Amino acid sequence: MIIDAHAHLVAPDSLYAFRALLLADGGYHGGTPKISDDALAEAAAGNVTTMDAVGTDLQLLSPRPFHLGSSMRPARMLDPWVRANNDTIARTVALHPTRFAGVGALPLAADEPVSAGFAELDRLVDLGFVGVLVNPDLHEGRGTTPALGDRYWYPLFERLVERDLPIHVHSAGCYSERETYSEHFVTEESIAVLAMLRSAVFTDFPSLRVMISHGGGSVPYQIGRWQADALHPGLGGGPDAERFETSLRRFWFDSVLHHPLSLELLLRTVGADRVLFGTEKPGSGSAPNPATGRDFDDIRPVIEGFDFLSAGERQAVFEDNARTVFPGLKAHQGAS
Amino acid sequence: MIIDAHAHLVAPDSLYAFRALLLADGGYHGGTPKISDDALAEAAAGNVTTMDAVGTDLQLLSPRPFHLGSSMRPARMLDPWVRANNDTIARTVALHPTRFAGVGALPLAADEPVSAGFAELDRLVDLGFVGVLVNPDLHEGRGTTPALGDRYWYPLFERLVERDLPIHVHSAGCYSERETYSEHFVTEESIAVLAMLRSAVFTDFPSLRVMISHGGGSVPYQIGRWQADALHPGLGGGPDAERFETSLRRFWFDSVLHHPLSLELLLRTVGADRVLFGTEKPGSGSAPNPATGRDFDDIRPVIEGFDFLSAGERQAVFEDNARTVFPGLKAHQGAS
Amino acid sequence: MIIDAHAHLVAPDSLYAFRALLLADGGYHGGTPKISDDALAEAAAGNVTTMDAVGTDLQLLSPRPFHLGSSMRPARMLDPWVRANNDTIARTVALHPTRFAGVGALPLAADEPVSAGFAELDRLVDLGFVGVLVNPDLHEGRGTTPALGDRYWYPLFERLVERDLPIHVHSAGCYSERETYSEHFVTEESIAVLAMLRSAVFTDFPSLRVMISHGGGSVPYQIGRWQADALHPGLGGGPDAERFETSLRRFWFDSVLHHPLSLELLLRTVGADRVLFGTEKPGSGSAPNPATGRDFDDIRPVIEGFDFLSAGERQAVFEDNARTVFPGLKAHQGAS
Amino acid sequence: MIIDAHAHLVAPDSLYAFRALLLADGGYHGGTPKISDDALAEAAAGNVTTMDAVGTDLQLLSPRPFHLGSSMRPARMLDPWVRANNDTIARTVALHPTRFAGVGALPLAADEPVSAGFAELDRLVDLGFVGVLVNPDLHEGRGTTPALGDRYWYPLFERLVERDLPIHVHSAGCYSERETYSEHFVTEESIAVLAMLRSAVFTDFPSLRVMISHGGGSVPYQIGRWQADALHPGLGGGPDAERFETSLRRFWFDSVLHHPLSLELLLRTVGADRVLFGTEKPGSGSAPNPATGRDFDDIRPVIEGFDFLSAGERQAVFEDNARTVFPGLKAHQGAS
Amino acid sequence: MIIDAHAHLVAPDSLYAFRALLLADGGYHGGTPKISDDALAEAAAGNVTTMDAVGTDLQLLSPRPFHLGSSMRPARMLDPWVRANNDTIARTVALHPTRFAGVGALPLAADEPVSAGFAELDRLVDLGFVGVLVNPDLHEGRGTTPALGDRYWYPLFERLVERDLPIHVHSAGCYSERETYSEHFVTEESIAVLAMLRSAVFTDFPSLRVMISHGGGSVPYQIGRWQADALHPGLGGGPDAERFETSLRRFWFDSVLHHPLSLELLLRTVGADRVLFGTEKPGSGSAPNPATGRDFDDIRPVIEGFDFLSAGERQAVFEDNARTVFPGLKAHQGAS
Amino acid sequence: MIIDAHAHLVAPDSLYAFRALLLADGGYHGGTPKISDDALAEAAAGNVTTMDAVGTDLQLLSPRPFHLGSSMRPARMLDPWVRANNDTIARTVALHPTRFAGVGALPLAADEPVSAGFAELDRLVDLGFVGVLVNPDLHEGRGTTPALGDRYWYPLFERLVERDLPIHVHSAGCYSERETYSEHFVTEESIAVLAMLRSAVFTDFPSLRVMISHGGGSVPYQIGRWQADALHPGLGGGPDAERFETSLRRFWFDSVLHHPLSLELLLRTVGADRVLFGTEKPGSGSAPNPATGRDFDDIRPVIEGFDFLSAGERQAVFEDNARTVFPGLKAHQGAS
Repeated sequence: MIIDAHAHLVAPDSLYAFRALLLADGGYHGGTPKISDDALAEAAAGNVTTMDAVGTDLQLLSPRPFHLGSSMRPARMLDPWVRANNDTIARTVALHPTRFAGVGALPLAADEPVSAGFAELDRLVDLGFVGVLVNPDLHEGRGTTPALGDRYWYPLFERLVERDLPIHVHSAGCYSERETYSEHFVTEESIAVLAMLRSAVFTDFPSLRVMISHGGGSVPYQIGRWQADALHPGLGGGPDAERFETSLRRFWFDSVLHHPLSLELLLRTVGADRVLFGTEKPGSGSAPNPATGRDFDDIRPVIEGFDFLSAGERQAVFEDNARTVFPGLKAHQGAS
Repeated sequence: MIIDAHAHLVAPDSLYAFRALLLADGGYHGGTPKISDDALAEAAAGNVTTMDAVGTDLQLLSPRPFHLGSSMRPARMLDPWVRANNDTIARTVALHPTRFAGVGALPLAADEPVSAGFAELDRLVDLGFVGVLVNPDLHEGRGTTPALGDRYWYPLFERLVERDLPIHVHSAGCYSERETYSEHFVTEESIAVLAMLRSAVFTDFPSLRVMISHGGGSVPYQIGRWQADALHPGLGGGPDAERFETSLRRFWFDSVLHHPLSLELLLRTVGADRVLFGTEKPGSGSAPNPATGRDFDDIRPVIEGFDFLSAGERQAVFEDNARTVFPGLKAHQGAS
Repeated sequence: MIIDAHAHLVAPDSLYAFRALLLADGGYHGGTPKISDDALAEAAAGNVTTMDAVGTDLQLLSPRPFHLGSSMRPARMLDPWVRANNDTIARTVALHPTRFAGVGALPLAADEPVSAGFAELDRLVDLGFVGVLVNPDLHEGRGTTPALGDRYWYPLFERLVERDLPIHVHSAGCYSERETYSEHFVTEESIAVLAMLRSAVFTDFPSLRVMISHGGGSVPYQIGRWQADALHPGLGGGPDAERFETSLRRFWFDSVLHHPLSLELLLRTVGADRVLFGTEKPGSGSAPNPATGRDFDDIRPVIEGFDFLSAGERQAVFEDNARTVFPGLKAHQGAS
Repeated sequence: MIIDAHAHLVAPDSLYAFRALLLADGGYHGGTPKISDDALAEAAAGNVTTMDAVGTDLQLLSPRPFHLGSSMRPARMLDPWVRANNDTIARTVALHPTRFAGVGALPLAADEPVSAGFAELDRLVDLGFVGVLVNPDLHEGRGTTPALGDRYWYPLFERLVERDLPIHVHSAGCYSERETYSEHFVTEESIAVLAMLRSAVFTDFPSLRVMISHGGGSVPYQIGRWQADALHPGLGGGPDAERFETSLRRFWFDSVLHHPLSLELLLRTVGADRVLFGTEKPGSGSAPNPATGRDFDDIRPVIEGFDFLSAGERQAVFEDNARTVFPGLKAHQGAS
Repeated sequence: MIIDAHAHLVAPDSLYAFRALLLADGGYHGGTPKISDDALAEAAAGNVTTMDAVGTDLQLLSPRPFHLGSSMRPARMLDPWVRANNDTIARTVALHPTRFAGVGALPLAADEPVSAGFAELDRLVDLGFVGVLVNPDLHEGRGTTPALGDRYWYPLFERLVERDLPIHVHSAGCYSERETYSEHFVTEESIAVLAMLRSAVFTDFPSLRVMISHGGGSVPYQIGRWQADALHPGLGGGPDAERFETSLRRFWFDSVLHHPLSLELLLRTVGADRVLFGTEKPGSGSAPNPATGRDFDDIRPVIEGFDFLSAGERQAVFEDNARTVFPGLKAHQGAS
Repeated sequence: MIIDAHAHLVAPDSLYAFRALLLADGGYHGGTPKISDDALAEAAAGNVTTMDAVGTDLQLLSPRPFHLGSSMRPARMLDPWVRANNDTIARTVALHPTRFAGVGALPLAADEPVSAGFAELDRLVDLGFVGVLVNPDLHEGRGTTPALGDRYWYPLFERLVERDLPIHVHSAGCYSERETYSEHFVTEESIAVLAMLRSAVFTDFPSLRVMISHGGGSVPYQIGRWQADALHPGLGGGPDAERFETSLRRFWFDSVLHHPLSLELLLRTVGADRVLFGTEKPGSGSAPNPATGRDFDDIRPVIEGFDFLSAGERQAVFEDNARTVFPGLKAHQGAS
């Protein structure tokens, strides 16, 4: 069974028309999006067709992150918008319960305490979601959100551990004028990994499970820098310090990388038991690769072709690791 | 001959005591650092010893970037500090002209026009420097510097082309509370590459030479993402767009990566003719690697051991590419 | 012939889905909305049906103002969004040239010079638009836009006079937390009238034509206050000052008021030759009035029932004043 | 008996010289204004003469609102200034207890909790004041004061209900550069009415009495807009929602409008039992109306001339409504 | 003849009532203060009586500085207020031309170019004023005004030299919460002296005449500190540098010090040819000194009692220095 | 015995190189300065030689104030830097316990509560320090620190009284662009004195001992101004108010003035029992005075030459007052 641990909701225009209205009226009109059952079914069916074409059995669906707008004001617009996304995912999962599982978003706003997301987090549990998408840069490139290692996030980590839900780290929009949102994804994933490792989070929450998007940003590639750093006496390190390559394996990583050399580097540095198959398809990788004739994000054949992986390692990457990180998936096992 | 294209000044405490005084007095005391010839000779000799131990013939010395403080105020402190660094490099090069060449910094301050650096740039030429270190984030993590693709930088690019000096892209301090300066290096290199490629810089300045530090940040590792992006119709791309792997080769990259897999990925994605041997030694990589017994930044043997490189490619990495990017090196050829 | 001088575009969801995308991606994706001809035709036909039901022959269509977002950042998102609106209006007018005429918006952004709108203004002329919607509060309740009497606006007034286009004053969104956008409309119309009268605009641009929305905000109702003010020696007035009731007639006003007493007060204070029939239908007034069984914004019968108006005055309100203010309407006269 | 529910203190220059000193010295000099008994008696007598000339028996005197300066800094200047105003009113009332009653101000400062006004509120009760003037825009056009429907104001409402004192809503200065303070009065009254009706204030404080100045700003004139809004399903309304015309009658309004058509509209839309005679005389309306030969603010004859009012309605407007809203007036009844 | 070079206008309350109105209405009412001839004559006569009591023949009258409000906003209020002060001084001088001469203020506002004061400066010349009061801290303790040595002030210095008018340096209000305005006077005078001496002002404007209030703030007392500083090699000084005691004599100082030891220190450090008799009487020094029975600011007898001064030096202090600094005084010589 | 109550640490460059590193890396490297015993001994010995040359027996050593950087960010850099200073002082005192005693600094940061300094204060007690240096302007010229009379400081005063430690008031850096740090010293000392006297500090903490640097800034020189102020009825004073000359004697003052006239004025106005001998040597006063051939800061002979002092008064100034203010000195009495 092939589980794609990183995919986003495919929804009709009416969801986004609601979004535009909400941003324009500042929440004055109220209400919820008007998404007809037919339109939703058509969108979901299209996505299933895409999955079939590349051999994906089950997708973990989360909201399109760059639409989340955690930095937009007034903050009261955030809650209805996040709920609308989660509700639309829930409806999509209900249409194809063996093909989709939900990873929800939370109404976390820049400069607000994370407890603002608790009510929705509890609702996600009730709706059967298997994980939570967390944007580590709530200011979306326009301010200074405490990094994920900061105690600012502790109440959320505590609640996630209580509800046994993993985090999918994925940044959202970026309005800094220096990076596109897509470029900012990579920046924020790198910061998330490094800031959490500089902090006490994994000591304080040993059972917290965290999946980093897009192969960990820059970190596996820059691993030599951080290995040296950890052992460098001038930087507070030393021979008895935990090796960075060990620390790094506190995380899981998805395989949204689109290039064989990068996938190989990731698998070799963090280990096959720490990588989850993920494609973000359909998404920004869904352009045809002239070299292969397949879309860049059609990476199942690439991984299947890696000789250095054992069959068990491949099974881990394609399915078992996902089941470890997202135990709620057992409710969706009809798909296997 | 082995040229290390990325190394920083080793200077006596008195240089940094001057720095502390300058930051404290806001420029009121005036003057220059009091660095005795003896102290300077001792520091330089120590560095030569380090070079000999790893087989480096010639180092390109630039100021320690995280000390540059382009965001600190009042801005009038920047000029004497940058001059003090460049002067100390010039004195060091004069002591060992066959072992060192200078790459200078400019007094570019956040929110000031880049023309503020022209006088010092001209002075660098007079002093025989072979390149210029440019910090792409003048706000050092506390604001929004126009990315290197922005027209803000054009007067500087124009002047550099006129004087035939290459840019060494290297960020400086980071005071955002989200990243250490070392982590910020990687972020800023990635932004530099992507922002310049989204811009018209290389069309407008076809002869501009740019070397990106630390193996290009995240970009070679994330190459699949940007390859797809360039060809994706929904993002303004298409089959006739320039391939990202082609675009990427408009830059040069140094090899400050410290890990064999990363070095291999870099060399295979950008090509051996675009990589300059660089170690940043002595620096944050100068901690012993328990797996090899050598320091992490002692990567000459690693590159020498790469079977996939031809002898000519190795020669390019170790010497020829540096001579292409930094033509001023011919004045230092006694070292060969 | 009944001309409704104040109505807004009825468009398919896909226009607003484009808007949501633009706000989310900060302009990175580029492109234009994907509005199919069928969807557009269906929306337009629905509006024609509404018009027929209340006896409107021709509507002046402008973008829905509260969606314009002149205060949103980055400002580069404004231009594609405004163009998308104007283009959709142009397509709608092209479908029913005898039933619709276009009043376009401009990409004027808070804290930017008004010349930013000139290119689009010229394009509007080319597309056959008959007027321009101007939002007098570009900060949308979050800052201090120079009032319409300020010289900030002069370059725009000059261009409008040159192109013989009238202004329809209509504010856009409001994010102040003190008012809804709908309440802010009234505030801004009042400020527009009073600030322009305190200024030299009508002396400097005697041929500028300005239509104030929603019956002039508060001004006709508060007329006594301003009449006294104009003549009060302690406020710089005096018996020789221009009477306020005279000054007020430099403007035109639309009849979007929905209540008979208010319509009567408007007509009696500013004169029937200064009022244009307008309903903003379908819009916020399209709720059934329990007292009449008709929608609140179905005010044609109310005006027809005013005994104090002569037939000529009624003709002026329903058609002739619109032709005076918007001379471009003669291109749409097939509808009569 | 004719009670003018909206009039302001007429005071000697020495009160305002104290004000200027306070603003200049930031509170350093301390002390209180030096207003001689003679000067005060002369000012009060002048005002009585004005009242006699237009037939007013009793005036409710409050401080001149635009002098209050709730946004000025340092905030410690506010308390002595407000006390000086209230004290001067108390002295004036003591001189003519049958002709004047006091409506006091509170030292409420922008960005400070409303409890800052409690000590003065209690003192007002001790001094026999019959109401409290409340400025709903403490930032005076330069910031965002929570609207009167916000819980920010609840402690004050609670205290007012406890002490059985009504609110006279009247904004103060305006330094936004977009409106004069006089224009801002109208804006703020409209916001006050609409924001309170959008909130739960009248549910939470059913016995709170609120008089809106200047005929309710724009609201009675724009009533059709808000009637439709309340019933519009797209805006959260519906046929069972409370009708806006009913909601509006939760307030009282004064008649400071100066124009017969406006007065008629007010009386017809909110009802004669909700309108208090008020003239703000002497004030900005005290300029001669060329059409009548009387001052604009001499509106007693206008109201007396309204045929559509019964004698009882007229008595309500001129006296009874004031006694309902300001029950403390029974202490001043010698004037009847 | 005794000339008091530092005294301020004594004006009726009506001047300050105008000020309060202006601050409250933001300039909306317009107009000028209503100061009756009788009230003005009474105020002026009172001041003459005070002068006679202490033996002053002629006073240089400037506006009360702490009322000037150069930091208050909107800045357009500044011009009418400064003009009102200057006009009132001019009327007072006209009443007693042999007892008073005028030193005017300029409408210089924080963050505005100094050219904003040129029109009034020219008017002062026309009105016969003999000097100009300059507040060196236009932000009045709430921001960073360029110090008097900065080129910001050069256009003003140029104009003053052209018109042959001296500067009386005197700060105005202070709203920093750390100092009263009176304490701030001392701070600002010290900054003025030291910043001008660190600059090139006296080189660039050799004929500029500057009188520092209140005995030079702290500078004469701290003279040893600055003498050492000027000669200290570590601070850019040296044996050939101009001695500070020489530099200090580029200024004139008034004698507003109220204590014999301080007066003596001033006279001995700067020299009797650089001190102008000044008392600021009536002012903050007009409290009875229990030790002498005279007011603190009655310092004529103190200076007359200084044995270390020659008769010629006393004459310089009491009259001649004033005539040197303020040559326009010759128009007022009837008083001698 | 001659005790110099105001002197600063003389330290090797390595202390300041650590400082520069800390400011550059934002605290990332961690660690402490690397100051060798030899280098420290050499620096200390040099200072002892200086002391011997001018006849000083014992110096109270505090950190060089302008290096403290209480306004620099991130604030976490403050603690290691202050500790490094205090530690270096402790090592220096340990080398020469009969020649030095320590006055420590606290890690008080702008906009942070003063309790941030308690841990270090307790450590200072443990290390045997005899006093605490307090910078009254934590914003260092870039913001508004509550003045020393404000309750903000009360927790610190309370702790100091508990530990029986006196305060040495001495400001630190100044980055306002209007003053050098040295000029700012004088400004801040004046503010400290005047603000504390306007407050209730000495009533609330009657046993708090406070020494003001540099002869009290401007205050003794301007004493007449404040004497009048205290007694002036218009400023809240009166004949029964405490005389300012009495109030002023609640403080102690050091003699860092460098000029005989200033020293005399200080001693005569505050009394010899309130002045502590202090020279700040070696420091900014260590330049040769051409008039005497001795350094400006060699003021022992000046004070010894004052005839108006009795022998007992001289003894008080040179030793006894220091022992009163700093009782911890009895642990250092081997020096006598």
